[in-house]
Amino acid sequence: MVAMKRARRKFPLSRVYGLLEPGPVVLLATARKGRPNVMAMSWLTMMEFEPPLVGCVVSGRNYSFELLRASKACVIAIPTADIAEKVVAVGNVSGRRTDKFAKFGLTALPASLVAAPLVAECYANLECRVADTRFVNRYNFFVLEVVAAWVDPAVKSPRTLHHRGWGEFAVPGRTLKLASGKA
Amino acid sequence: MVAMKRARRKFPLSRVYGLLEPGPVVLLATARKGRPNVMAMSWLTMMEFEPPLVGCVVSGRNYSFELLRASKACVIAIPTADIAEKVVAVGNVSGRRTDKFAKFGLTALPASLVAAPLVAECYANLECRVADTRFVNRYNFFVLEVVAAWVDPAVKSPRTLHHRGWGEFAVPGRTLKLASGKA
Repeated sequence: MVAMKRARRKFPLSRVYGLLEPGPVVLLATARKGRPNVMAMSWLTMMEFEPPLVGCVVSGRNYSFELLRASKACVIAIPTADIAEKVVAVGNVSGRRTDKFAKFGLTALPASLVAAPLVAECYANLECRVADTRFVNRYNFFVLEVVAAWVDPAVKSPRTLHHRGWGEFAVPGRTLKLASGKA
Repeated sequence: MVAMKRARRKFPLSRVYGLLEPGPVVLLATARKGRPNVMAMSWLTMMEFEPPLVGCVVSGRNYSFELLRASKACVIAIPTADIAEKVVAVGNVSGRRTDKFAKFGLTALPASLVAAPLVAECYANLECRVADTRFVNRYNFFVLEVVAAWVDPAVKSPRTLHHRGWGEFAVPGRTLKLASGKA
């Protein structure tokens, strides 16, 4: 399963909301002692425009939960439909005893500000630090601050994946443009 | 602007996540003294499967913020592309001095368990009670519990709206079905 590595240009933090607000499935990349891990995630929302805050639920049963809580950093990487099979595969296996980057042909690249890796095959990568853990015990809910963002400038209308449950994903088709006075 | 009123069948709470997880723009309906209000919202996420918990950000500048905080109830109504113009219109006007249901040709119907109204033109309606307000002061973030759900059974692949910012919306096109062992 070889997939294209994406180009990468720095992206303004003020525009990050437009990447996550449409509700794509994302990959959450973490690291422990230099060993990277990655999971699939759909339960996340924007919470503030700038600095961008993102809230997300990471189940306490996931290996990534431990890594996120211990390292206080992660990368949110946004995949497109060309790597849908990798995304599902990543979501079905635990990283506790498996190097998922190696197993599923994904490439971990160094991030600029956090120890967690970028995912080279994803069209957007958001470097995040954990900003608030007060809802972790009750809801497994982390508040993240996006501290750096990278996007492939060639991707104008990303064919993101939108999970409807049990392996069914909607992929964007038509784009509607309507007059709006608001972000 | 006349739009179709949808059929409405009771929907199992255990499957609600499949409606919100793909990240659609929703309408948030509230009420004060029998007068309904409605806003557009994209900043929300599932937080638990069952009972379904939903986290959402409602700006303190919105009239709906006051109504949600005071009434502790709302309806999350999910629109489809056929009423995209109404959704944008609802999102661009405050309900403080305008009856947006009347102005934009939407129909408020009584809900079964909460005082907030259903929106007849939406294919899904989720009756919610506010379950946790501890993140409201800091993030305008409400945790809602879905207590009843209604869906138009005729809608199999809803053409939901996914906001990319400034009036641009992605609408689902193709559906991918991939083997997955997980919800």
